[in-house]
Amino acid sequence: MIKIGIIGCGYWGPNIIRNFYETDGTEVAICCDLNPDRLDFIEKRYPSIKITEKYLDVLKDPRIDAVAIATPVSTHFALAKEALSHNKHVFVEKPICSTSLQAASLIDFSNKKKKVLMVGHVFEYTAAVNKIKEIIESGEIGNVFYFNAWRVNLGIFQHDINVIWDLASHDISILYYILKEKPLSLNATGISHVKSGMENIAYITLHFKSNLIAHIHVNWLSPVKIRQIVIGGDKKMIIYDDIEPSEKVKIYDKGITIKNKNQEDTLKAELQIEYRSGDVYLPKLEPTEALRVECRHFLDCILNKRTPRSDGESGLRVVKTLEAAQRSLENHGRKEKIDV
Amino acid sequence: MIKIGIIGCGYWGPNIIRNFYETDGTEVAICCDLNPDRLDFIEKRYPSIKITEKYLDVLKDPRIDAVAIATPVSTHFALAKEALSHNKHVFVEKPICSTSLQAASLIDFSNKKKKVLMVGHVFEYTAAVNKIKEIIESGEIGNVFYFNAWRVNLGIFQHDINVIWDLASHDISILYYILKEKPLSLNATGISHVKSGMENIAYITLHFKSNLIAHIHVNWLSPVKIRQIVIGGDKKMIIYDDIEPSEKVKIYDKGITIKNKNQEDTLKAELQIEYRSGDVYLPKLEPTEALRVECRHFLDCILNKRTPRSDGESGLRVVKTLEAAQRSLENHGRKEKIDV
Amino acid sequence: MIKIGIIGCGYWGPNIIRNFYETDGTEVAICCDLNPDRLDFIEKRYPSIKITEKYLDVLKDPRIDAVAIATPVSTHFALAKEALSHNKHVFVEKPICSTSLQAASLIDFSNKKKKVLMVGHVFEYTAAVNKIKEIIESGEIGNVFYFNAWRVNLGIFQHDINVIWDLASHDISILYYILKEKPLSLNATGISHVKSGMENIAYITLHFKSNLIAHIHVNWLSPVKIRQIVIGGDKKMIIYDDIEPSEKVKIYDKGITIKNKNQEDTLKAELQIEYRSGDVYLPKLEPTEALRVECRHFLDCILNKRTPRSDGESGLRVVKTLEAAQRSLENHGRKEKIDV
Amino acid sequence: MIKIGIIGCGYWGPNIIRNFYETDGTEVAICCDLNPDRLDFIEKRYPSIKITEKYLDVLKDPRIDAVAIATPVSTHFALAKEALSHNKHVFVEKPICSTSLQAASLIDFSNKKKKVLMVGHVFEYTAAVNKIKEIIESGEIGNVFYFNAWRVNLGIFQHDINVIWDLASHDISILYYILKEKPLSLNATGISHVKSGMENIAYITLHFKSNLIAHIHVNWLSPVKIRQIVIGGDKKMIIYDDIEPSEKVKIYDKGITIKNKNQEDTLKAELQIEYRSGDVYLPKLEPTEALRVECRHFLDCILNKRTPRSDGESGLRVVKTLEAAQRSLENHGRKEKIDV
Repeated sequence: MIKIGIIGCGYWGPNIIRNFYETDGTEVAICCDLNPDRLDFIEKRYPSIKITEKYLDVLKDPRIDAVAIATPVSTHFALAKEALSHNKHVFVEKPICSTSLQAASLIDFSNKKKKVLMVGHVFEYTAAVNKIKEIIESGEIGNVFYFNAWRVNLGIFQHDINVIWDLASHDISILYYILKEKPLSLNATGISHVKSGMENIAYITLHFKSNLIAHIHVNWLSPVKIRQIVIGGDKKMIIYDDIEPSEKVKIYDKGITIKNKNQEDTLKAELQIEYRSGDVYLPKLEPTEALRVECRHFLDCILNKRTPRSDGESGLRVVKTLEAAQRSLENHGRKEKIDV
Repeated sequence: MIKIGIIGCGYWGPNIIRNFYETDGTEVAICCDLNPDRLDFIEKRYPSIKITEKYLDVLKDPRIDAVAIATPVSTHFALAKEALSHNKHVFVEKPICSTSLQAASLIDFSNKKKKVLMVGHVFEYTAAVNKIKEIIESGEIGNVFYFNAWRVNLGIFQHDINVIWDLASHDISILYYILKEKPLSLNATGISHVKSGMENIAYITLHFKSNLIAHIHVNWLSPVKIRQIVIGGDKKMIIYDDIEPSEKVKIYDKGITIKNKNQEDTLKAELQIEYRSGDVYLPKLEPTEALRVECRHFLDCILNKRTPRSDGESGLRVVKTLEAAQRSLENHGRKEKIDV
Repeated sequence: MIKIGIIGCGYWGPNIIRNFYETDGTEVAICCDLNPDRLDFIEKRYPSIKITEKYLDVLKDPRIDAVAIATPVSTHFALAKEALSHNKHVFVEKPICSTSLQAASLIDFSNKKKKVLMVGHVFEYTAAVNKIKEIIESGEIGNVFYFNAWRVNLGIFQHDINVIWDLASHDISILYYILKEKPLSLNATGISHVKSGMENIAYITLHFKSNLIAHIHVNWLSPVKIRQIVIGGDKKMIIYDDIEPSEKVKIYDKGITIKNKNQEDTLKAELQIEYRSGDVYLPKLEPTEALRVECRHFLDCILNKRTPRSDGESGLRVVKTLEAAQRSLENHGRKEKIDV
Repeated sequence: MIKIGIIGCGYWGPNIIRNFYETDGTEVAICCDLNPDRLDFIEKRYPSIKITEKYLDVLKDPRIDAVAIATPVSTHFALAKEALSHNKHVFVEKPICSTSLQAASLIDFSNKKKKVLMVGHVFEYTAAVNKIKEIIESGEIGNVFYFNAWRVNLGIFQHDINVIWDLASHDISILYYILKEKPLSLNATGISHVKSGMENIAYITLHFKSNLIAHIHVNWLSPVKIRQIVIGGDKKMIIYDDIEPSEKVKIYDKGITIKNKNQEDTLKAELQIEYRSGDVYLPKLEPTEALRVECRHFLDCILNKRTPRSDGESGLRVVKTLEAAQRSLENHGRKEKIDV
């Protein structure tokens, strides 16, 4: 039985608690939050779980094997490092840290302590994203031409990170998980409509060595919630709509065929492109909760000394990309290199 | 009775012919195309219309009062100029010309010849766009925070212009028509997946003096057709979905209210934002065909010596913006000034 | 060249004219309507077509080989019979006649005159319905358990027939076209909200010898337009949504499997049913206009002396069913036999 | 503090437990189920709740004030009666009993015992249904012409009741809640595709003294889940789509206006009907969980000695209607009187 402590019981924490609580082989032994109301809420729901306002009560508890951290991003590094130093395995929400330096340091330290370090890139554990990864890797859609993500809704305006760090981090982790090729550079633009100056709307374009392009559109101020990724290949195309309750992934047998690549007469180029439009199919997806799969994976990595799918390196790559986007934003959309 | 000649009977030309044909007060007297098959098609449908492969047959015909030009963009300037020199009123499809120099020259010449010069910014004549303009001008949605346009579909790859000149020109004309403020600069990124090097996917961000941002996403290689514009104000928000057969415009009484602008405690900033979510309504739109309205407007401008809604200046502003986007594309997304 | 005369140029007639006009091998020589405005409309569009207010001008014209009738249903029988007596092939809109006696008489007469008699069951010529027929006949969905049709919209209230004769006739023709088994009885209920007493809402349930059930729901007073048919088989299920511009037909690999048919323990019956849920696919449909296919088929039947897909017998079966529904409506939903 | 005992912890029971558990002023003291696995599940989630396989442990517990019954319908009467005889207030899931005789007997007994008897017509506690009731009562949609309900999905096939008792009971309770007029008769048709003979597809038409008609379409064997009610008035129309996450209720300013009711010329009747089509609006709905509201209402009725909104009489009316539908089903759709 792996004993887990949870630090942070705000918006997302209770979901982590529920999932570890209901996973065989784990016991949620203690929860920590600075807000007594949140602790009351947990205590009412789960009378068996110990509560505390002091995170050291969690870290110093010798019964605790592993810690899950669901606090504001700015606290991730310090809490995760201290947890590792108390020989706990660490699960930390995304983004893993506020800077790539912190992330790299955490990876080193977890290696030294021989503890699992896993970041909560939850979409890497959804049935939809894994089905898409499988389809792309099978070659079914051919060479990937583009990856277009829209992730918009009304709120919640974060106070310590902007919309890129909050929402685009999901799309970057999905992009890196399903495609092997990594980007070389990006441009980012955006705007803030609040006093804090934190951008609430942003657009990122990622450039690659091949003829792949990726674009991410995030917005905290949208009247409707959209969670959509379109992936276009030279053979087929995929639409992933995460809002759809059951028909999340559609594979379109659509595209263009360029008939004569050598012909030079550009005036007739229009005639050389053939548009294909065939069947559409929606693969069956297992109705699993991604966070449940993620919690079990963390448990499995601890028990079997495995490297998590979303390990520290994965968290670092996302943070490096977010930093580049931040630099581009601050430089009027200037092209910035990415080294991931 | 105003007699019209049409130059260009390809994809869009027949729509112009049909609308002028069915408009009282106009007669389509002659049509021109280089392709005899297109002329046969017109002749079969409209036996009363004269056909020709020589555009000068149209321009030199003394019965003809006005000419509508629906040819490739690269020919717009020369044809429109020659039509004006033969004292014809000119309706030219969008974009008005290939360069802003050409557009400016055309405006001057039409003024000198005292002839109507109108560009086919067809969306400015839709019931939906006019309703949106009316709502924004009434103050109902408050200050406009953003304008987000998505215009994507599969094909048709143009051979002489890229996807920005083809599709984004619509969104730019809509943006300039419904909002008074004009952008100061833009960034554009994109990619070409065909040998011609013409971009088939592009993203444009437009920056303004106020805290407005605009973004345009265009793609010729999408598995589905999307024609959507979201406009967010500080009071309400609008979604315009042009694919919807009847429910094209939705007004959302949604937004944020920032409760205490002076408070400095950023840690509690989250609490200072209130999310409002009220009724949604869909205004009734008249089921008119935009091109019909546009053709009648051209006729009205000729008869009553009026300046068209989408006059040469409107066409010039759009071309200047497309040129800036082109420069940014060629300079890796660099910020480019716009002077419109 | 087959010369066609059209009688009736109201709502649907112009579509028939356009399609015959644009079909190679046919010439629309003359059109008839009692309303001079409709004739003006046709003349303006098609100056080559002769117009008349007297239907005998059409029937007595020796150049005319075939007649298409798109007039109110109450006139179908007399006009079609007279056209046959003048040795014209006859295409008549649905329903073929006002009574089954009339329809049977027309069939006899057309056989005697050796002329083609075809009824305009237009859905039998759509790509969607033919794809569904093909899928059902392939055995892919297994035994058919149900056929549920919803055909509702706002207007047009017909003045001489009720909503069953107007709208349900489409669903009955589709049902008979795609399924071999014919119903033995039906129940119909409905209501009229207008002074004429013509029902504007109605529901029909059709019963079969096998464990198939069909239900048709029609309504002229719906705020939205719905054109949907769901067909459930014991292997797969089909949803046909005719409003969808491109994704009209979806095949669901869903259903139940009854595990042990002999087990008597009804308390555990719940456990014996397994719910299957697999992939969904949307077959590619050719983007043809059904009326075009229908017009060509009529031409082909004339030229090659073939029996039309939607021949007089097909029209008669639909009318017999409508008559039974009418009797049931008048008898408070009583079960009525059908002999088709 | 009202102490509650729950009998039945299967599919729906845990939702009741969770809601009473989280409602201030109530304590879930004990839960009963025949299946030890279900009890284990409850115990793991709520260690503070006592569990038992014997329902008498609940009924005889003197601390218990009220009992919630979520067992198969055939057991409702005996359990509710025994609970009342132990002086417990009773909340029983819908339908209240298997027969109207049982329901009437239960009402009498609860009156004699002066205990609250409430039936779980959960939709009467949704924000959507209450908003619709408010709109109808305000006169905004005018006289109601029709109520059309579709409630279909794949499974769960009940083993002791058919699809009418399972699903149509919801629509009947909604119909009776939002409209004052009660039906005088009904017709029902349907079919069973399983060995038990329990109908899994059914259609009910309800007739009223006024020109209102209601129709309910239920199906356990549908490839997709639909929960839709359309209500047409002579002024406006309402669509209630319970699957929509946020845009559940739409009010359409659409309908017909009959211009001259006295005119007798039926040939011109078509011209006398005008189709109106105005704005659509979607009223804001509070995002409350209906079952939470329902649990609080039960508590309020106990504390303040009030008659519940969905009292025994309400349950009886629904059961009488289900019985009439059952008789009609067994008599080939024959019209059956309803006395509610």
